[in-house]
Amino acid sequence: MERDRTPFNAPNPDFAARVQASFARQRIMELLGAELAGIEAGSCEIRLPFKEALCQQHGFFHGGVIGTIADSAGGYAGFSLMPADASVLTVEYKLNLLAPADGDYLLATGRVVRPGRTLVVCRADVVVYKDTRQTLCATLLQTLMTMHGRSDET
Amino acid sequence: MERDRTPFNAPNPDFAARVQASFARQRIMELLGAELAGIEAGSCEIRLPFKEALCQQHGFFHGGVIGTIADSAGGYAGFSLMPADASVLTVEYKLNLLAPADGDYLLATGRVVRPGRTLVVCRADVVVYKDTRQTLCATLLQTLMTMHGRSDET
Amino acid sequence: MERDRTPFNAPNPDFAARVQASFARQRIMELLGAELAGIEAGSCEIRLPFKEALCQQHGFFHGGVIGTIADSAGGYAGFSLMPADASVLTVEYKLNLLAPADGDYLLATGRVVRPGRTLVVCRADVVVYKDTRQTLCATLLQTLMTMHGRSDET
Amino acid sequence: MERDRTPFNAPNPDFAARVQASFARQRIMELLGAELAGIEAGSCEIRLPFKEALCQQHGFFHGGVIGTIADSAGGYAGFSLMPADASVLTVEYKLNLLAPADGDYLLATGRVVRPGRTLVVCRADVVVYKDTRQTLCATLLQTLMTMHGRSDET
Repeated sequence: MERDRTPFNAPNPDFAARVQASFARQRIMELLGAELAGIEAGSCEIRLPFKEALCQQHGFFHGGVIGTIADSAGGYAGFSLMPADASVLTVEYKLNLLAPADGDYLLATGRVVRPGRTLVVCRADVVVYKDTRQTLCATLLQTLMTMHGRSDET
Repeated sequence: MERDRTPFNAPNPDFAARVQASFARQRIMELLGAELAGIEAGSCEIRLPFKEALCQQHGFFHGGVIGTIADSAGGYAGFSLMPADASVLTVEYKLNLLAPADGDYLLATGRVVRPGRTLVVCRADVVVYKDTRQTLCATLLQTLMTMHGRSDET
Repeated sequence: MERDRTPFNAPNPDFAARVQASFARQRIMELLGAELAGIEAGSCEIRLPFKEALCQQHGFFHGGVIGTIADSAGGYAGFSLMPADASVLTVEYKLNLLAPADGDYLLATGRVVRPGRTLVVCRADVVVYKDTRQTLCATLLQTLMTMHGRSDET
Repeated sequence: MERDRTPFNAPNPDFAARVQASFARQRIMELLGAELAGIEAGSCEIRLPFKEALCQQHGFFHGGVIGTIADSAGGYAGFSLMPADASVLTVEYKLNLLAPADGDYLLATGRVVRPGRTLVVCRADVVVYKDTRQTLCATLLQTLMTMHGRSDET
């Protein structure tokens, strides 16, 4: 049942380049200042440094911002396992906020839980880093849909 | 069971001013370009005009952006019913994306489903407007926590 | 945006008979004592009288029992709009428990929120009746999948 | 971030006996035929053998039944860490169904993700066993509430 080393085979050997290209097209990532920090078959990491423009009323990262990078981290974990002629769509996600997101940066790690032909279920954990401390501040459970025959680029 | 005209009494008569002040402190709303479009006891509307910087890879509003305004619309719907010495915290939310968010602007309407003393459950619907057409593009179900004795301003 | 009178057209005119037959095959409904209380195009009601065997440790209906009838009410609301050669599968659901389910019976009402070709999103509200009082005790948000070409009977 | 060996300290040394006693009061577990298969500080296992009375229309375990044991497994994982004068309430849960629950028995394993003073977030995985094969068939993400000063027995 363990999925921390993702034992997945990607049908498309160019999955990393495809994820990078798709991430670069997600204009919202640029607005937030998020970076693609890692991509493997079935997992993806997104890093987001703190800035005041990302905050809710108490000066912490807004829950919706946390949801945005967690959604994309899960989405690209799933996309990494999809065939070359497919694109990815988020069907739904649920986000639990576990601790105040008070820190220097966030790291969202998405992992595939179950890769189906049409539907892919992923999880993402978001850790907030402050000085030397790291705190799990959110967890997401997500359903993706594989759009066969629809290129990611259009 | 109908909750479209919210029949709620706000314990704090200044709820609208409090929501406006809190919204103004949510720096992320400014970054996105979101506006507080309406506030009543138990409901809240947030409007978000389109710009390319808010998009995912296909040029539609990113699901996380939709989640961000839906989370805040639900959160402020709940906050409008909280006492003056309390602040609001999102415990969790689930977002279903129902149709491509392709349009000129989004309108997220949050409504309280059940106002408890500690926990408040809200719903939010997000409609995308394009020319004369409007499409329900997302729905959110959310749990909030009332932080009694913790001011929203600190 | 209102969906309380479901304005849906069922492609299969025999949808009510199909739902009744499928419900009768859900053996768990018999074990719980649940009854199909109503079926229209895009909505479904399931009624569950109280018995001690359905309870959690405090003597109220167990949350999982509430989830079971809410899942089926949403599922059959969706199924009512599916073509005759399809069956329905629950992809996921989220249930918020809003008040103690303390009463004589439960009534779960499922309604289609968005009927897609492959995915159908539904909502269900569960009301508990005690003497003359009725209380909204749970709400569910659910994603269904249409299994085209797979009969419900096999 | 790993939580597979739960590194939690239970404030109540009698947690296992308390969980057993509470489980025995959940009459629904008896109706379904579910057994408490394991309890540690921060985790709980519930086992459910197959019987036709638990099925949906295709002869597999009903999704609501899966949700019921997953909800209880998560709930008792959380309850194991609560003080002796408290009881547990499920606030909400989300269940993803990952594969047909076709097999001889189910095993639901609940684990605490984050133990807060008031709110506790748990996860549960449900595995279906058929002959020598085991398949992850569902995963649940759940929010619990600690009811301080309210005994589990009343």
